[in-house]
Amino acid sequence: MNKTYEQLMKRIEKVMAYQAALTLFEWDAETGAPEESMEYTSKTIGILSHEYFTNLINDDVKKMITKLGDEDDLDFNQKAMIKNLKKQFEQMEHIPPAEYQAYEELTAKASGIWSRAKQKKSFADFAPTLEEIINYQKKFASYRVKKDKKPYDILLNDFEEGFDSEKLDEFFKKIKEAVIPLLKEVSKKNDTVDKSYNYQKFEIEKQREFCKYLCGYVGFDFNKGVIAESAHPFTTNLHNHDVRITTHYNENNLESSIFSAIHESGHGIYEMHIDDVITQTPVGTGTSMGMHESQSRFFENMIGRSEAFWTPIFPKLKEMYKEQLKDVTLEHFIKGINKSAPSMIRTEADELSYPLHILIRYEIEKMIFEEDVKVEDLPKIWNKKYEEYMGMEPEDDSEGILQDIHWAGGSFGYFPSYAIGSAIAAQIYSYMESIMPIEQYLKDGNLTPIREYLNNHIHKFGATKNTNELLKDMMDEELNADYYIKYLTEKYTKLYNLY
Amino acid sequence: MNKTYEQLMKRIEKVMAYQAALTLFEWDAETGAPEESMEYTSKTIGILSHEYFTNLINDDVKKMITKLGDEDDLDFNQKAMIKNLKKQFEQMEHIPPAEYQAYEELTAKASGIWSRAKQKKSFADFAPTLEEIINYQKKFASYRVKKDKKPYDILLNDFEEGFDSEKLDEFFKKIKEAVIPLLKEVSKKNDTVDKSYNYQKFEIEKQREFCKYLCGYVGFDFNKGVIAESAHPFTTNLHNHDVRITTHYNENNLESSIFSAIHESGHGIYEMHIDDVITQTPVGTGTSMGMHESQSRFFENMIGRSEAFWTPIFPKLKEMYKEQLKDVTLEHFIKGINKSAPSMIRTEADELSYPLHILIRYEIEKMIFEEDVKVEDLPKIWNKKYEEYMGMEPEDDSEGILQDIHWAGGSFGYFPSYAIGSAIAAQIYSYMESIMPIEQYLKDGNLTPIREYLNNHIHKFGATKNTNELLKDMMDEELNADYYIKYLTEKYTKLYNLY
Repeated sequence: MNKTYEQLMKRIEKVMAYQAALTLFEWDAETGAPEESMEYTSKTIGILSHEYFTNLINDDVKKMITKLGDEDDLDFNQKAMIKNLKKQFEQMEHIPPAEYQAYEELTAKASGIWSRAKQKKSFADFAPTLEEIINYQKKFASYRVKKDKKPYDILLNDFEEGFDSEKLDEFFKKIKEAVIPLLKEVSKKNDTVDKSYNYQKFEIEKQREFCKYLCGYVGFDFNKGVIAESAHPFTTNLHNHDVRITTHYNENNLESSIFSAIHESGHGIYEMHIDDVITQTPVGTGTSMGMHESQSRFFENMIGRSEAFWTPIFPKLKEMYKEQLKDVTLEHFIKGINKSAPSMIRTEADELSYPLHILIRYEIEKMIFEEDVKVEDLPKIWNKKYEEYMGMEPEDDSEGILQDIHWAGGSFGYFPSYAIGSAIAAQIYSYMESIMPIEQYLKDGNLTPIREYLNNHIHKFGATKNTNELLKDMMDEELNADYYIKYLTEKYTKLYNLY
Repeated sequence: MNKTYEQLMKRIEKVMAYQAALTLFEWDAETGAPEESMEYTSKTIGILSHEYFTNLINDDVKKMITKLGDEDDLDFNQKAMIKNLKKQFEQMEHIPPAEYQAYEELTAKASGIWSRAKQKKSFADFAPTLEEIINYQKKFASYRVKKDKKPYDILLNDFEEGFDSEKLDEFFKKIKEAVIPLLKEVSKKNDTVDKSYNYQKFEIEKQREFCKYLCGYVGFDFNKGVIAESAHPFTTNLHNHDVRITTHYNENNLESSIFSAIHESGHGIYEMHIDDVITQTPVGTGTSMGMHESQSRFFENMIGRSEAFWTPIFPKLKEMYKEQLKDVTLEHFIKGINKSAPSMIRTEADELSYPLHILIRYEIEKMIFEEDVKVEDLPKIWNKKYEEYMGMEPEDDSEGILQDIHWAGGSFGYFPSYAIGSAIAAQIYSYMESIMPIEQYLKDGNLTPIREYLNNHIHKFGATKNTNELLKDMMDEELNADYYIKYLTEKYTKLYNLY
């Protein structure tokens, strides 16, 4: 092996160990840590982040990366590793270590502050922290601004290589033009689907059991993964043999935990199938938030909300909740789980109104970074946009601007990934339908060929290829939002017998 | 503040951050991590251990410690800190970092190997790993052997400052002479206590609820702590605001989880009341395993098995298990929870036979380190000693030599702490009875004055005073096993109407 590369990897191993520790602290904070622990634990997190940072961003590493950029005895994975490190380096090298540590300590505390503010439905309690986070993000982006690049574009590109607000403006324009009128048509017929069955009392212990079954059914491997509970469902991983998902149970809403569980399983299955050779390295994880989200949406929506998927397993759910589901047919259930019922809450949104939630966040993030909008004005702006696009306003901040944890974690430029993910999922599904009998597989309860195709064409590569490279190698075409528009239009036209 | 001290503390902060991360990985491995995660995670743990080690054990730190040892502008806590670091330094400075890292990776994997071997009841599956661990421990001890000191004495002193096998031989001799004949007398009357009520079916969900209530009742603060489940109950902590205990539920044994929960709460209460000023520093934890165990035993046995303790809360337990406990009176219950019924399993042992379990482990550890006994012969030796001291032999390795996790973690010299802890607890209880109306407090359901006394005389000091210093400052007497013998003799004579 290349000597310099070997040396570099020794350093990177250490960096990855800090990253794993930080991931575990984050997981723990969401799933198990005591209420009052974070004040002191944030000090530990600050120190580990500082070590992470200084071990990655330093002249030694820079020299090695530069040297290796010119060498050609590296294999495919090694080249991808160097490219990836170079990108991380460019992201971080101009941030002073002390600032980075202070920022990490801030965001470690912020999720607690956000969560308490949400409970109290009071944006004012979170605003000063959010403002601090935004100021850091602006400062960090300003260190990296080059000619022709705007700060928000830099953040967008961090989450999805090759994407900027120009591309996304166009992307969201298409969605806006197609989805808003479609949603209006659908809204007129909303009442034709009776979904009251979903809001009966469903014992949580049974939901737990069914969700665990479902995760396993779609392919989440419980030898290499666990499921826990948290306020906001998420997936994380230490490596490909340690993948963790959470869900959240609501006694009066059967669907909520079911589709969270399938969704997070999609994320989990991606991480579980990263190649052993690259796990515990910087490229040993999903290539982008958008591609990650495509896998969770693929399982949740394209597969998980289809009649074929439920055909073999709906009887099991009915058996479990005999009383509650005794009058619900499979056909009725499929209409129910696909019912468009625009709500204030993104994570509870149906597939059709979902991209509008993202559109709103995208527009607000752009305003924050490009128009210097005041933090205190954000709830007003938020509420106005909901009124405009969805015809409804939140009753309070907890179902408005405080609903998502992302900004508390400093994740700006992340939200668009959700819409990109849906679009990728629709595109992949459309292609896979053309090369294999997906529907038949689902009816047979045989998800293996579907999952294996994704394993072999997406998952195993980790971050050694970016989104468009993966798509191109798979179907000879880059991301194209038209598939998504077509998918939504056809699906909802059929479901609601429009036109 | 002293400049050198300040510098040193900057370094130590980093060391403590690694320690916190390692603690979290350990907690996670026992309570949440996926089955197959450890193979890769052990690499992370190895790296973090290496960082922990090299940041603590190096010439810079040594120079600072040496310099500070001679300075006299340090306050009480600072002096204790330097003394503590000096001790840690002496423990570790001669171990080559690569060996330490390899050893840490080994023990990270060992608990999984032990647990699978235990499940398979096959010592042979664990023996090679155990042998490796023992060899490391011998090697590490050999680096530190000075004149007049034997390797096992070095290990004993690590767990309890000032203790060696000479002192412990004497300590265990007293116990052997008193407990073996007492146990024989008691055995003759074992049948007079009917404890069948304890082995009915007790719904685990209710046990969970009752245990959580009990932990809170004795003073475990759930804002600064959590309770989880693990195969073997234990306590750990990241700092004084993050203390974690586990218990283990057995559907057919009511007592098992209850007394584990009280026991671990005792450990937890100790860690929760370490002074804020010293938490997240090397002296910000319990001073020794023995003193720690004294706190858990104090709550579990002296308090938790007394009639006064159960007087106000037994009705609640009866209410919870109406059917199962309907014929059980408080008096009957107290006899039941104190029934001497020697068993093969240490953690399920009654108070009287308990020290014999420890005696056996102590004698075997001595043989391992002083007589070079072969690992493969250990089960035979184990079984013979159980036959000799307790009149019974284990049916298989899982209830024999594989029952405890300690050796898989490399903890040799630890077991005696359990007996020392019981002895300290009896001594403290005897003293406290003479200065406050403990029994009345318990009957009134008012544990606060008892807990506060321990907080102020033991807990808050962390490791700034050692066991004998704490005892001396409290009652003007060092550890004296006679209180323990007297306590056991009086308690069991009364319970069984002996003589």
